[in-house]
Amino acid sequence: MQNFVFYNPTKIIFGRNTVPRIGKETAAFATRVLLVYGQASSKKSGLHGQVMASLAQAGVTVVEHGGVCSNPLLAHVREGIAKVQQEDLQAIVAMGGGSVIDTAKAIAAGSPADCDVWDYFVGKQLITAALPITTVLTLAAAGSEMNSGMVITNEATQEKFAASHPLLYPKVSILDPEQTFTVPPTYTAYGAVDAIAHVLEFYMTTRDVDVPVQRDLMEGLIRNVMQSCARCLADPCDYGGRAALMWTATLALNGLTGAGLGQTAFPMHMIEHSLSALYNVPHGAGLAVVVPAWLRWQLGQDPARIAYLGRMIFSLPEQAADAETAELTIQALRSWFRKTGNPVSLTELNIPASDIPRIAANALALARVWRLNQYTQENIEEILTLAS
Amino acid sequence: MQNFVFYNPTKIIFGRNTVPRIGKETAAFATRVLLVYGQASSKKSGLHGQVMASLAQAGVTVVEHGGVCSNPLLAHVREGIAKVQQEDLQAIVAMGGGSVIDTAKAIAAGSPADCDVWDYFVGKQLITAALPITTVLTLAAAGSEMNSGMVITNEATQEKFAASHPLLYPKVSILDPEQTFTVPPTYTAYGAVDAIAHVLEFYMTTRDVDVPVQRDLMEGLIRNVMQSCARCLADPCDYGGRAALMWTATLALNGLTGAGLGQTAFPMHMIEHSLSALYNVPHGAGLAVVVPAWLRWQLGQDPARIAYLGRMIFSLPEQAADAETAELTIQALRSWFRKTGNPVSLTELNIPASDIPRIAANALALARVWRLNQYTQENIEEILTLAS
Repeated sequence: MQNFVFYNPTKIIFGRNTVPRIGKETAAFATRVLLVYGQASSKKSGLHGQVMASLAQAGVTVVEHGGVCSNPLLAHVREGIAKVQQEDLQAIVAMGGGSVIDTAKAIAAGSPADCDVWDYFVGKQLITAALPITTVLTLAAAGSEMNSGMVITNEATQEKFAASHPLLYPKVSILDPEQTFTVPPTYTAYGAVDAIAHVLEFYMTTRDVDVPVQRDLMEGLIRNVMQSCARCLADPCDYGGRAALMWTATLALNGLTGAGLGQTAFPMHMIEHSLSALYNVPHGAGLAVVVPAWLRWQLGQDPARIAYLGRMIFSLPEQAADAETAELTIQALRSWFRKTGNPVSLTELNIPASDIPRIAANALALARVWRLNQYTQENIEEILTLAS
Repeated sequence: MQNFVFYNPTKIIFGRNTVPRIGKETAAFATRVLLVYGQASSKKSGLHGQVMASLAQAGVTVVEHGGVCSNPLLAHVREGIAKVQQEDLQAIVAMGGGSVIDTAKAIAAGSPADCDVWDYFVGKQLITAALPITTVLTLAAAGSEMNSGMVITNEATQEKFAASHPLLYPKVSILDPEQTFTVPPTYTAYGAVDAIAHVLEFYMTTRDVDVPVQRDLMEGLIRNVMQSCARCLADPCDYGGRAALMWTATLALNGLTGAGLGQTAFPMHMIEHSLSALYNVPHGAGLAVVVPAWLRWQLGQDPARIAYLGRMIFSLPEQAADAETAELTIQALRSWFRKTGNPVSLTELNIPASDIPRIAANALALARVWRLNQYTQENIEEILTLAS
């Protein structure tokens, strides 16, 4: 096990009828807030009204900032920052999924900054201050509700980049599984893939092989994502299934899985971010295409690890050879992605193979920012070819 | 899954050569501290000198409070509180295992209090303030380094009672597995049993059967305690084994396993506390005697759950009947306790069966404080008889 620091001060309030607590929890930090949310769904579901009422009752004044889209955009972040500065707001309340929470984080970091917020994403500046953030989660997927990271797309440069800082842990996140009853099957499955990919990035890229506690935890999380996703698809209002998927997705990227693994990386996300940035593909859908391809590309280098995963996740037989079992593992994972309604090839995303060089060039830029120096134009093209 | 709040703000600094960070981490909260520790071992190992040097270098003045014993005593807590008040100290640094950290917590809560600190343990008063606590852990067992609970023995009344409050989460805990290389085999095994018991209390007493995420996590933790303990016994300086045992014991009682389980209870601890209070038995050794007996007493009521555990922990066959598998599970657990050097009967603790009524009467007092109303003098005696 490698040395680590684990520190996660987010307070999670989980369960039925917890949304009305957002007002009082937020009032502990601010009386004037920016409420960040997405498209029409939160108004249709009644959540918007509930959150507004709770904030009003706690004496919190709200400036609204709706319209966050999937693969959230830098321009919209900058508009939010302008509102915070003009109205002298003290905190950000996010109501939505990962895109909304990431937008809220970028506004929280960008509002008190002397520099442009994008400087944080390209590594030009380090975050030194951020407004407090509270959240009401509506999608089991990104894990942003209990971590310190954010991902934003710069639509001008077609870069989908990430940044993180301990100041960006939400102070409080409210997770009510009932708020996800209306998530359509496709997005339920995309979210499941996102959570699985978060675990797999750590699982596959750690160089430490003596991490049994973390490995057991990660395998358990992947199994639970798959089992709970299946329940949600069979019955969108299965509370136990929605609850298990929501909590698992949160645990999949709250720092716990990576604690002790040493240096890890996000190569699958690196490539997927280009699909999202260039084609506005839903993040989970893009990952469902990239993950099996990246694993197949990795097959020659580390069959033992993929085989071990397959034995733990798909109960593949102990006695078969690693190479064969690893191949079966990738097939089983890809089949599961397909079965749950995810695309598993670039073709299914309507992306022609002739675009591969352009996608690889875009991903390479992120590889350089993330210092993933083993990735080249050539091998990213290889991985994308395996995805086509 | 039941509603829950998860909030754990302790910062964990884990790994080799991390002890020298205690000074700077503590200086963030205080310049005058009480250093709480145990017997001679921390001086012999050089840890005491390292901690003192680090605190001095960070400009932190230290008043010492050594002499904490296993099953820490209320009188010693009160002496610590007197020192804090007389010397106007601002924080508590704990250097040791669970007994030391629990003593530090009791001093931290008792020092700013208007009432006697014992009032918190008998439920007469609620904690409303506590000094900040930092810790350097030397034993993988109690989990106190990352939770908000504490257990103290009132030697006058022979009561070993517990209390907890969010203010008691250590601000920072330093976990260096190398500091446990010198823990003797017996105490290594007692610590493992303590960690297993913490998980089992939740596992066995939740009434919610739809908690797959937590169940997987708990089963993984128990497997990892057993595997890592075996490594530590085979080679006390196996860093990977010590690291896995240390981190697993911390995760076993940091709030994560219980989040979502609803109401749970600590009936095995309830009975063990009486063995510690009356006979000064090491806590883990007492648990090794009580746990199999309690499980056997529970066998008639919930064979399915014990059988499921056995299949997940000891790979017992799926097809055998629950009652039979549950019996094999208890036998396997008891055998493992014995194999690792734990006592598994009252006789091995030199406690005669004729003492059972007295022990049960003592445990019953705690059962009333913890509102475990299903426990009576009679059924506690039954459980103790199964342990004899």
